[in-house]
Amino acid sequence: MSGSDHLTRIVLASRPDGAPVASDFRIETHPLPEPGPGEVVVRVLYLSLDPYMRGRMSDAKSYAEPVALGGVMVGETVAEVVRSTVAQFATGDVVRCQGGWQSHAVLPADHLARVDPALGPVSTALGVLGMPGFTAWVGLDRIGQPQAGETLVVAAATGPVGATVGQVARLRGARSVGIAGGARKCAALIEEFGFDAAVDHRDPHFPEKLAAACPKGIDVYFENVGGAVFDAVLPLLNPFARVPVCGVVATYNARTGERAGPDRLAGAMGAILRRRLTVRGFIVYDFRDRHDAFLAEMAAWVRNGDVRTREDVVDGLERAPEAFIGMLEGRNFGKLLIRP
Amino acid sequence: MSGSDHLTRIVLASRPDGAPVASDFRIETHPLPEPGPGEVVVRVLYLSLDPYMRGRMSDAKSYAEPVALGGVMVGETVAEVVRSTVAQFATGDVVRCQGGWQSHAVLPADHLARVDPALGPVSTALGVLGMPGFTAWVGLDRIGQPQAGETLVVAAATGPVGATVGQVARLRGARSVGIAGGARKCAALIEEFGFDAAVDHRDPHFPEKLAAACPKGIDVYFENVGGAVFDAVLPLLNPFARVPVCGVVATYNARTGERAGPDRLAGAMGAILRRRLTVRGFIVYDFRDRHDAFLAEMAAWVRNGDVRTREDVVDGLERAPEAFIGMLEGRNFGKLLIRP
Repeated sequence: MSGSDHLTRIVLASRPDGAPVASDFRIETHPLPEPGPGEVVVRVLYLSLDPYMRGRMSDAKSYAEPVALGGVMVGETVAEVVRSTVAQFATGDVVRCQGGWQSHAVLPADHLARVDPALGPVSTALGVLGMPGFTAWVGLDRIGQPQAGETLVVAAATGPVGATVGQVARLRGARSVGIAGGARKCAALIEEFGFDAAVDHRDPHFPEKLAAACPKGIDVYFENVGGAVFDAVLPLLNPFARVPVCGVVATYNARTGERAGPDRLAGAMGAILRRRLTVRGFIVYDFRDRHDAFLAEMAAWVRNGDVRTREDVVDGLERAPEAFIGMLEGRNFGKLLIRP
Repeated sequence: MSGSDHLTRIVLASRPDGAPVASDFRIETHPLPEPGPGEVVVRVLYLSLDPYMRGRMSDAKSYAEPVALGGVMVGETVAEVVRSTVAQFATGDVVRCQGGWQSHAVLPADHLARVDPALGPVSTALGVLGMPGFTAWVGLDRIGQPQAGETLVVAAATGPVGATVGQVARLRGARSVGIAGGARKCAALIEEFGFDAAVDHRDPHFPEKLAAACPKGIDVYFENVGGAVFDAVLPLLNPFARVPVCGVVATYNARTGERAGPDRLAGAMGAILRRRLTVRGFIVYDFRDRHDAFLAEMAAWVRNGDVRTREDVVDGLERAPEAFIGMLEGRNFGKLLIRP
């Protein structure tokens, strides 16, 4: 299917009503297009699957255009140049690019960023040294600002953003409490990523367990999941707590109509006022000017072992829809990558 | 009742369940206490009634202690010294102090702040030159940061905070849209306070009218009311909009139990993420270091007529509960003051 003269790709077949299902995606095979002037053909080595992609499947107003019906699913990739029409890239060069859910992509050369294999395995350009790592680092740098002795909480804490958030906060002197689903992930938080405490959000007494894990309240809640976790966090937030919001994956699947009550917005606004909380949404592209500082600090931490990472690699582009659907349900364990 | 040897005061008789009612308050008369060493006896000239007082009537966790059952209702006052045991205050001096809902108060001298009658009528020390004016100014200075050409929206816009917010934002070059209840208040927004547009929140087509008044969206929403106004504002907020939250009066009366759906929190969190909003609660005491800058700039604006004010003065301490209850329903028109 993905031989050198064909490309395989996955397109959006229909917009999900709630959680995406397999039939929202369609796999297609096409002849590999010829590159135009200034273009480069790449073969995708790794495709990153991320929760934000659920947003692109809907046509709600957002910071980015939705994927068109019949259009290729968007996604960041690490790829190898297989044909080049420009001097600055040669066959075999490794690049990061918006290759999408495809085996190959044809892209303008100025849309490629060279990946330095000396920094680590090239897949980390999609994880701790890529967008997830930058999201974690810059959300703390610009908004969360954990201070020594403070308590930080992050959910999806074995994921590429959450694991990095917890480790960076500890490097800043804060106490990190991670939330994950199931005993295996919770154990990994402590043993693999060095969190100070781990709480299982599937525990029937999750709110009480979270409170017990945060005896001094919560100063930074890095919001990357939304939903029931936020409900448990809200009463524990200390005065002047900061809530960087980089994802609300629990609500991405919400249908566009009204949701059942009770209404929690008024209570949240009251808490924001009374405890002078800061709740602020961001995406990494808002802070491009911090990227060099991020990469320098994070690459050093990864090299010396201060920040550890975990990948969940799935082989076969055709398995991307199933892996993506599973990720929205928390079934992955680590940074989810497709190796087409 | 409030002769020179007695003081009249209003105490909290019961904690309201929802909107406060007259029986939640009780009027008492006591002999005027003797001042202790270092204390001063003052006669209250003006008592400020403000929405935050609703919060103090409840025992929910907040930034301030609740009023005790049987305790005097708290409140800021402008008062005249009638008896002093200290050298730095003489009979006849005008001061600002936490006199509460009383005809007289006995306070430590170091709890009094001298009011300079040269800055304007002494009642403005409770309004545009006092806490409401500082709330407006500092919420814009530290959080809202309206820029030239941006659109600001504020509700309760004929109130002491709202009117000041709208006028200060225009002085910073922004376009100010005020929300108020009824044609008379809306007319005053344009004619008296110079807002660019006014929208009546009682209009059955309020959301559409607000959208029409904000053709370029909303960049700053100064949140001082909460409730249905926020629902109409949320879809209009532009990317990177700022929402300083200094009051959610529409929800102060909410019962402590669950509220009917639909649940709007998930939608709000999604908007915060997608449009990278900043929602931040504050009270003026968080920004004491900006008070001198506020007073200098605001006093000059009031003197030269750039910022105009309106007071709603009610005579008689015994009418304070009725006036306060009415304020929570939007029945006052301008800064509400009690003249005991």
